[in-house]
Amino acid sequence: MKKIYLIGMGPGGPEYLTVQAINALRQVDVFFFLEKEGRGKDELVQMRREVLNHYLGEDAYRIVTATSPTRRTSGEYSDDVLRWHDEKRVLFERLIADELREGQSAGLLLWGDPSLYDQTVSLVADLVTRSHGALDFEIIPGITSVQVLTAKHRIPLNRVGESITITTGRHVETCDPAEIDNAVVMLDYNASFQRFRGQNMDLYWGGYLGCQDEILAAGPLDEITDDLLKTKSEIRDQKGWLMDIYLLRRRKDTET
Amino acid sequence: MKKIYLIGMGPGGPEYLTVQAINALRQVDVFFFLEKEGRGKDELVQMRREVLNHYLGEDAYRIVTATSPTRRTSGEYSDDVLRWHDEKRVLFERLIADELREGQSAGLLLWGDPSLYDQTVSLVADLVTRSHGALDFEIIPGITSVQVLTAKHRIPLNRVGESITITTGRHVETCDPAEIDNAVVMLDYNASFQRFRGQNMDLYWGGYLGCQDEILAAGPLDEITDDLLKTKSEIRDQKGWLMDIYLLRRRKDTET
Ligand SMILES: C[S@@+](CC[C@H](N)C(=O)[O-])C[C@H]1O[C@@H](n2cnc3c(N)ncnc32)[C@H](O)[C@@H]1O
Ligand SMILES: C[S@@+](CC[C@H](N)C(=O)[O-])C[C@H]1O[C@@H](n2cnc3c(N)ncnc32)[C@H](O)[C@@H]1O
Repeated sequence: MKKIYLIGMGPGGPEYLTVQAINALRQVDVFFFLEKEGRGKDELVQMRREVLNHYLGEDAYRIVTATSPTRRTSGEYSDDVLRWHDEKRVLFERLIADELREGQSAGLLLWGDPSLYDQTVSLVADLVTRSHGALDFEIIPGITSVQVLTAKHRIPLNRVGESITITTGRHVETCDPAEIDNAVVMLDYNASFQRFRGQNMDLYWGGYLGCQDEILAAGPLDEITDDLLKTKSEIRDQKGWLMDIYLLRRRKDTET
Repeated sequence: MKKIYLIGMGPGGPEYLTVQAINALRQVDVFFFLEKEGRGKDELVQMRREVLNHYLGEDAYRIVTATSPTRRTSGEYSDDVLRWHDEKRVLFERLIADELREGQSAGLLLWGDPSLYDQTVSLVADLVTRSHGALDFEIIPGITSVQVLTAKHRIPLNRVGESITITTGRHVETCDPAEIDNAVVMLDYNASFQRFRGQNMDLYWGGYLGCQDEILAAGPLDEITDDLLKTKSEIRDQKGWLMDIYLLRRRKDTET
């Protein structure tokens, strides 16, 4: 039997790991680093290394690095995603066959929590099914960027009794703005919060949460949007990449 | 200046705490245990104590215990909630005045993550505003029951590109079932998943997640509902209380 640990490492710094995650790191024989090409790559690899150095000792662990296939945007979104999924599966199969001996465990350090907008869980579950008992896996929860966003802004995720939706930039870019009352938006590459001007909304925004360059912005959406767009474009110019997340919250009549 | 740490302790066992949370425990001069009357109370106090014993040493910490006001259900839901909020605020004010010296810090150990269906954040934020600089607070994220649910069932929280809603039993009890595609339901006292029979849904359920008595159930909702209702009523008879959470997920046509 071989085993894969999907370890949620939280948003960045070593202090976000749970004790359960640290214990899992110690079970791992080899860490697979699957990196996307592109700017920010080196910094993200460096952050993973810092976590391992911190808990396992400087370079006292084995890493195998591979380049993660990128999603081609040729035609149908869902076809592209399926093809991408297949390519990743083939890569994993090769890594597991070549780099892991019988009885050994591999570890994947995943940003935030493994279950939130990360396809590794479905991928590995798929491999485990196909392995007919030769492969097993375990998920170790981690602190998500959603939780760091609310903690840093010192706000609840939902007001009393209210629901909360977690969604993507892709969705809020095109949905009816009236549909959104209380939503966390991730994976937004087009600053889609702009669409919610004049909607009596508050915006709580965070970039590089839990990392050294963390920045926060909050206030009535109509008042802070222009400044935030400027900040975002300055950051992109300087660093070349940005991870951000935000909460859109419609004010209740009593709050205005 | 006095300070309050709202510390997310995850769903139960000490291994769910983050290193950041453990460091925060060490800053705390006094822990406030605000307990609700009712069955399960002793067990929940005991779990908090185990966490403190584990990280701070057997009884090497100070606790002040108070009984949390209970929400009366007299009339309008929102009025009841406001009155309850006020009563809690008065209790906190007294604790901070009487039990915390200038320069000291209090800690509240909160289940899961402080931001998720827990009113302590708004309460303490309110106190901090009223204190005009005499009181500060900090939120330490914790692993939510949502994350343990998905980790234990080894599923992603959302399928590719899809949104996820986190909501309450109160909501799913009365909403249009067609409105729910992918939702985590918390605070459900009436097993409202029953309403979703015949809707082509999968159900992933967890009780006492991360605790000793953890139980899981998963499968097509239509097939597992009867057994689950039986299990739930047996547990209630035996233990007298139950903390549970579940994910409702509508199957896509391709999955049937
Ligand atoms: C592929 S998803 C992975 C999310 C991750 N599993 C989690 O639990 O946070 C990547 C998105 O998460 C958000 N994100 C992740 N880490 C972040 C951070 N440190 N600061 C701000 N946003 C972050 C951004 O919205 C980003 O587009
Ligand atoms: C008042 S809310 C607090 C949630 C908590 N802040 C969190 O992050 O999980 C309580 C609800 O959380 C869910 N819950 C909390 N802990 C749980 C556990 N260990 N197992 C199952 N459900 C749990 C249940 O739905 C319960 O009704």
